[in-house]
Amino acid sequence: MNPITTQQLLNALEWRYATKVFDPGKKIPADLWQALEHALALSPSSYGLQPYRFLVIHDAAKRAELLPHSWNQKQVVDCSHYVVFTGRTQMTEADLDRFLTLTSRVRNIPTETLSAYRGMMMGDLVNGPRGKIAHEWATRQAYIALGNLMTCAAVLGVDACPMEGFVPAEYDRVLGLGNSGYASVVCCALGYRSANDKYAGLTKVRYPTTDLIKVV
Amino acid sequence: MNPITTQQLLNALEWRYATKVFDPGKKIPADLWQALEHALALSPSSYGLQPYRFLVIHDAAKRAELLPHSWNQKQVVDCSHYVVFTGRTQMTEADLDRFLTLTSRVRNIPTETLSAYRGMMMGDLVNGPRGKIAHEWATRQAYIALGNLMTCAAVLGVDACPMEGFVPAEYDRVLGLGNSGYASVVCCALGYRSANDKYAGLTKVRYPTTDLIKVV
Repeated sequence: MNPITTQQLLNALEWRYATKVFDPGKKIPADLWQALEHALALSPSSYGLQPYRFLVIHDAAKRAELLPHSWNQKQVVDCSHYVVFTGRTQMTEADLDRFLTLTSRVRNIPTETLSAYRGMMMGDLVNGPRGKIAHEWATRQAYIALGNLMTCAAVLGVDACPMEGFVPAEYDRVLGLGNSGYASVVCCALGYRSANDKYAGLTKVRYPTTDLIKVV
Repeated sequence: MNPITTQQLLNALEWRYATKVFDPGKKIPADLWQALEHALALSPSSYGLQPYRFLVIHDAAKRAELLPHSWNQKQVVDCSHYVVFTGRTQMTEADLDRFLTLTSRVRNIPTETLSAYRGMMMGDLVNGPRGKIAHEWATRQAYIALGNLMTCAAVLGVDACPMEGFVPAEYDRVLGLGNSGYASVVCCALGYRSANDKYAGLTKVRYPTTDLIKVV
């Protein structure tokens, strides 16, 4: 483990901002994008279940179709890579078994050794309290991935804009998610800031750390 | 902007895991923790509103009191820094004005220039559709902060364990959040892995990127 310095991290986080105007001519190089996809896949999630899928919208026609359902925010069409985060609409026994089969294979252990873990997840996410709010639970996991992606982009020098201002039902329709078991929950535009984005130079607005963080 | 290399980032993300056993004797140095607090405060949030507070539980007696309400997960008492993320229970006009007053001061602009922004937030988070799910909306913002914090910890070589397995109502009681307007939503233990944590050596389980990420 070869950590970066605190200054390097904080510089990156100070440098990042919710990019309002992307330079449509600047694309994220393929190797950098591949690393960001890898980073996204490495996001932590509850029980490790990864109850989401990430849609990268390359098709210009689709992006244009999404624009009016995105409060007409131009980042949708101007950014280099536009990611729609989707979350599982419910959690089923099959979801758990798919994950446990993968775990068993990757770690080379019999699935039977995972039966207590399976029981815990069943009693929580399928039949338990969180089963009733499974889509919301999945949404929260997608937000962890969003937080991870934005920080990863920042340390790699890639600009990003998180986007909650869109109409999920319309996105689901345009992206054909109807019966997929996934629904769109949040989006993130990535690429490079335009030299004309006046928001790039604004001072960040944050409550004092003493207000935000309390020691108990 | 001085980005880190993709390899350095991916090494950190591969190195991190949900730490099950912390070394109770190893504390995060003060300067490193200060940087993590700063990083946490720099988390992106919807409209920039930061509808959360982070409680850092140093008091050993409080941690012991939280343990039985945390599925008895020992990370709560053994980790170096234990953070409880709380989210605003509702959004009020006063929340918006507090934020706009701060914005006006930090950016040295009259609050009147922010009236359209204020109207948009009012129509969304106070009187609009998201007003009805304001605590859930705040929770999602806290999850962005959680994702950010875990990635920041990883690149700085600090171990972490996100924790959803706790009883929010009991946490709120123990932490005296009753009438504060904030409620606990998720936690994160930070510190250093014990040499005895057998989970540290396990292969990460992730669906293939081709399953998780779809190009449209």
